[in-house]
Amino acid sequence: MSSPRIEIICVGTELLTGKVNTHAAYFGRKLGEIGFSIAREHTVGDDEGTMSELFSEAFRRADIVLCAGGLGPTFDDITRDVWSKVLRRPLSENPALVRDIEKKFRSRGFPMPPTNRRQAHVLKGAEPITNPNGTAPGQFLKAGKKILALLPGPTREMVPMFEKDIVPRLRRGYSKTHLKTKIYLIVGAPESHIDQLIRPFVERFGTFEGCRITHGILASQSVVSVKFTVEGRSKSIVQRVVRTLSREAGLLLKPYVFGEDEATLEGVIGNLLRGRRQTVACAESCSGGLIAKMLTDQSGSSDFFVEGVVSYRNDSKRRRLGVKKATLAKEGAVSHEVAKQMAEGLRRAAKTTYALSVTGIAGPTGGSKQKPVGLVYIGCAGPKRTLVKEFHFSGERAWIRHRSAMMALDLLRRELIG
Amino acid sequence: MSSPRIEIICVGTELLTGKVNTHAAYFGRKLGEIGFSIAREHTVGDDEGTMSELFSEAFRRADIVLCAGGLGPTFDDITRDVWSKVLRRPLSENPALVRDIEKKFRSRGFPMPPTNRRQAHVLKGAEPITNPNGTAPGQFLKAGKKILALLPGPTREMVPMFEKDIVPRLRRGYSKTHLKTKIYLIVGAPESHIDQLIRPFVERFGTFEGCRITHGILASQSVVSVKFTVEGRSKSIVQRVVRTLSREAGLLLKPYVFGEDEATLEGVIGNLLRGRRQTVACAESCSGGLIAKMLTDQSGSSDFFVEGVVSYRNDSKRRRLGVKKATLAKEGAVSHEVAKQMAEGLRRAAKTTYALSVTGIAGPTGGSKQKPVGLVYIGCAGPKRTLVKEFHFSGERAWIRHRSAMMALDLLRRELIG
Repeated sequence: MSSPRIEIICVGTELLTGKVNTHAAYFGRKLGEIGFSIAREHTVGDDEGTMSELFSEAFRRADIVLCAGGLGPTFDDITRDVWSKVLRRPLSENPALVRDIEKKFRSRGFPMPPTNRRQAHVLKGAEPITNPNGTAPGQFLKAGKKILALLPGPTREMVPMFEKDIVPRLRRGYSKTHLKTKIYLIVGAPESHIDQLIRPFVERFGTFEGCRITHGILASQSVVSVKFTVEGRSKSIVQRVVRTLSREAGLLLKPYVFGEDEATLEGVIGNLLRGRRQTVACAESCSGGLIAKMLTDQSGSSDFFVEGVVSYRNDSKRRRLGVKKATLAKEGAVSHEVAKQMAEGLRRAAKTTYALSVTGIAGPTGGSKQKPVGLVYIGCAGPKRTLVKEFHFSGERAWIRHRSAMMALDLLRRELIG
Repeated sequence: MSSPRIEIICVGTELLTGKVNTHAAYFGRKLGEIGFSIAREHTVGDDEGTMSELFSEAFRRADIVLCAGGLGPTFDDITRDVWSKVLRRPLSENPALVRDIEKKFRSRGFPMPPTNRRQAHVLKGAEPITNPNGTAPGQFLKAGKKILALLPGPTREMVPMFEKDIVPRLRRGYSKTHLKTKIYLIVGAPESHIDQLIRPFVERFGTFEGCRITHGILASQSVVSVKFTVEGRSKSIVQRVVRTLSREAGLLLKPYVFGEDEATLEGVIGNLLRGRRQTVACAESCSGGLIAKMLTDQSGSSDFFVEGVVSYRNDSKRRRLGVKKATLAKEGAVSHEVAKQMAEGLRRAAKTTYALSVTGIAGPTGGSKQKPVGLVYIGCAGPKRTLVKEFHFSGERAWIRHRSAMMALDLLRRELIG
């Protein structure tokens, strides 16, 4: 088992004129999961000279070249042609691919434009890779000890092709080991705290039953992910080690973890509510609809989500949620008591099992010495009790709103699991 | 005036293991504004061998190399050292930089750790560039006809340094011209339509009063941006041409444009409402709070935003918005009439000048032959009339929700400007 040198090439003038390129991050994460790492990433515009110079260099240096973009039908999509010249491998039209592209156009009620024939041109010796979400097929070429994969540029086309067709071929070529990852997802605890917590555990477990166990911690958008990767000689050993590891790590992280692997906080809450045939509503002030938006991001959320009220003004808080005029006058809209009345008032009106409330100062204006920007009260009214928590978030408006929504959802989750 | 070959280098293992790199997009946009373009972008991990190989190549090929990252104080921050070896230029400690770094630490109440001295090491012949937001200074080196700029990796440190200190130096070195850009922002018309519309105009205007006029069209998140760049010998000529161009292009694009330059659709609506002391509320079903979220993304939105109701279930539409039971039974929740009643009911209840409503099927489940996924009714009730429009969006759930919110906001904008 040797570690191949991998270079990534992203093709497209738009990537050098203002469009953010997420391919490098995606490939880095995915390849990391199978124990590979990227040596270099390159981005180049749709320019034959520069592409040609880059393709030659990269193919000379690397064991594996992954090249995304420039497989479209228009005149500036020249990735296929440049590789053909650089590798001195002619392109030929693949009849099955032509039929497939024609079929895709027919299903949308259009004839295939003649320019799209170019998308069926395949490098000599390369295997075509089907694209379920677009007309541009990919290609996989094994040339001696080197590998070249061509993939379309749009993420929603590229990703499924990479995961289904390229990753298994790369693993077959370079690795005889088996890999499995386990991710624990955490909200409400800082990365550094989780790091300290798992460090002794990880040191004890470094290698176990002949498997190599590595871990990583990543904080992104309020969620801390702890990822363990287990690599071993056989699938059964790897599975056994993952089971042991899950048991122990699960126990250690239990107070913090809201989900595993691909879960989302709103998805976990949706499943909990759906499973119990319970419902939720949310009353939002400073989060401005973000909680409702997150809960309804999921298809089928009408199973558990009844309504949201974005009460931005005091009269709306009174009329829609039954918050008392006297409380607003005495305590102010951003207060423990108003958060409580918002949640309880909405729960009564919407007749839901739970109701969440958020009231706070997202800034940058509106803060004072007593009630600074970042002060947020979050309430959760349920069948047994109403809980209100006070938070002090720092950062920009968007971040304070995001944190408020995440902490509200986590409060609901904790109330749900007791 | 020649166009220099620019290569961008981003240094940092995190950029090859899952962190999205936004530097290339940022540099591309900023350099485009001054008429420069990027030939290639490279990302490399903190590995001396790979860095060294990349730095040599890039400096050999390019006129300008911009290198971001790896200027921190820790052992893996080796950008300075690798450039020193590659260019055979020794590093020496700059006493003023040492004092500046020491001062930054003192102001936070810490002594400067000895490792941070490394950050004051400057390549022979390079000019240090002050970092107002961090401890890592940048460097600007003019070596013969070539330029090398070293910048810190974190965006909030890099950006101000690039704009204040690097951009003017690049322009001085390579261009004696003046530049000004004008951007028109459009929603609700496809990119190809706008492209056809402006093509004859652009061809007529290619050069005008000795200024070179270039244009670009970019579609992103439902917004089509048309950007004109005017380049000429003197500031006054450029300004005059921009005025003429703005008058003519403004007239041509007027039916479509919602704003210019840095505007956002929600910001434009906020300003219109605020200026007239008018208010808005929104009743959302399939968009699930997204419109409320977008309108309240802006600080001070309580000036015009009164409330949002996310009525996900029929009983909520009746109770909160006064939608009639009979209409729901006869027409269904996703219908022209329900959208009308939602907007009018909310406008009455919230006592606002305008009320928006959205009801539709965001999918992927819930569609039928009569009412397929993507069918959305958007209503806007105002002082003069209630308008309801029917849309057929295609794509994924998130996209249908996003399109619904954007079209609702654009409907309101059009009603506002009459």
